[in-house]
Amino acid sequence: MIAVDWGTTTFRAYRLAPAGSIVEKRSAELGILAVQGDKFAEALESQIGDWLDADSGPVVMSGMIGSRQGWKEAPYAQCPAGAKEIAACMVEVRWGTSRSAWIVPGLSCRDRQGVPDVMRGEETQILGALDDVLEHSARICLPGTHSKWVQLEGGRMTRFATHMTGEVFAVLKAHSILGRMMTAADFDPVAFQSGVLRAREPGGLLHHLFGVRSRGLVGDLTDDDSAAYLSGVLIGHELAAIPRLTGAVYLLGVPQLARLYAEALRTYGVDAGVLDPDSAVSGLFKLAQTLPGS
Amino acid sequence: MIAVDWGTTTFRAYRLAPAGSIVEKRSAELGILAVQGDKFAEALESQIGDWLDADSGPVVMSGMIGSRQGWKEAPYAQCPAGAKEIAACMVEVRWGTSRSAWIVPGLSCRDRQGVPDVMRGEETQILGALDDVLEHSARICLPGTHSKWVQLEGGRMTRFATHMTGEVFAVLKAHSILGRMMTAADFDPVAFQSGVLRAREPGGLLHHLFGVRSRGLVGDLTDDDSAAYLSGVLIGHELAAIPRLTGAVYLLGVPQLARLYAEALRTYGVDAGVLDPDSAVSGLFKLAQTLPGS
Repeated sequence: MIAVDWGTTTFRAYRLAPAGSIVEKRSAELGILAVQGDKFAEALESQIGDWLDADSGPVVMSGMIGSRQGWKEAPYAQCPAGAKEIAACMVEVRWGTSRSAWIVPGLSCRDRQGVPDVMRGEETQILGALDDVLEHSARICLPGTHSKWVQLEGGRMTRFATHMTGEVFAVLKAHSILGRMMTAADFDPVAFQSGVLRAREPGGLLHHLFGVRSRGLVGDLTDDDSAAYLSGVLIGHELAAIPRLTGAVYLLGVPQLARLYAEALRTYGVDAGVLDPDSAVSGLFKLAQTLPGS
Repeated sequence: MIAVDWGTTTFRAYRLAPAGSIVEKRSAELGILAVQGDKFAEALESQIGDWLDADSGPVVMSGMIGSRQGWKEAPYAQCPAGAKEIAACMVEVRWGTSRSAWIVPGLSCRDRQGVPDVMRGEETQILGALDDVLEHSARICLPGTHSKWVQLEGGRMTRFATHMTGEVFAVLKAHSILGRMMTAADFDPVAFQSGVLRAREPGGLLHHLFGVRSRGLVGDLTDDDSAAYLSGVLIGHELAAIPRLTGAVYLLGVPQLARLYAEALRTYGVDAGVLDPDSAVSGLFKLAQTLPGS
């Protein structure tokens, strides 16, 4: 099969052996925002036309390629959902005389108050990492621009919540008064931890954010430490909002971020497991197994 | 006397009669950031040199003019502080052969965890508005870019907390994924109120922020309503972080913002009083009364 992880800024394709091992991989800065005039078929042919010619098996694609701005919208599957429910919502695209590919849907849920949440792409990463989760009930945290906290029950995602932690950090650093004092110094783990602990004190996030500035103004925080402290305050507030932070927790993200979250989680007495962040390919392979003829 | 409110972007000067009424006022886009090469004396002379020549009494200035980036740093007075304590920390500047002016210090405090907070300019507005606060104990909220919540006890400011609410709204609207969906539609009070109520539900601010996007994606929130909803979520989280929101609360801010906060406070059963937002002049007048020879 051919597994394609097609996001906003990056295109990644993998040719897999029948048993699921990666035979060859390609990537390009050809995210969906870089594809002009909806020419997604042409973009895909330009990257892996030779694989398609060689009839390498079904093509399954996940990520923003299935969003409203992508090739064809694959409406969100609903929680609770595992591989079977997600596969059932895949959408087919056809082009040329006989080419076709499947697009994986995103996942949505509603909280007890009826407010919706959505993911697109992470569901496939999670499916790929599921086999390394041993407990029946567990939580997976995918840290990042939009961190996801996903509740697992018996191999299905029952609910999840997204936190804008990474994006809020980035816009405050680049565009707010807090960023003006920050330097490019090495990330200080002590300042980070101090921010994580601050988040457990009263006052609220909007007040704790101003503390980055006021602590700097009175000399309690150096300019070199302020970015790490801000990061700690934000990640700390994300963790403080997770209900009942006990039981099995797994981290699924790039190593640098997974390390930060693991450190912050330790202040809550949680020893988080770490999952392979390159699990999207396994997830796509798992979904391909459900296709007719597999 | 001459009262000067000299902030980051704006210069405002008032010539007052001995009893405190405004005889004449002038303003210019000559905030401290617009003053080149520390030529503050020249800038002041260019605006009100004729008043100074006419010996209109002492000059008292508040705002960022007393910051490290201003004319001369006026170190923060410490809470608890009223007019007397703040006046005692005023700093004098002299120029020319016989000109001089007083700069009002900012105010700082530390919370129970020892984390500092600071204000500069708002303390003078509050001093000017104090006479309209009838209760011995009361809170004043100054909504804005950096909202302040100030505890008053018997005419003195005993502690306060700053919330970055207005700035976080502005940077998220201008620079985050949330801003992309927003239109220039009229501010919808129902969407605002719905955001205020969302802030009282579990999940945390970072999760509620992502809800602006997810509600939009699934069609629960229109693009036209999303800015008002975001504003409600942020102001709601500011209020949710105020401890024991009971007792007398006063709002001191521009009418549009004071109205929003009053509406949000009503969901907490608080009927806030409204103070005159142009109170800086009265505060400067009150401080001038403490000078020798007054």
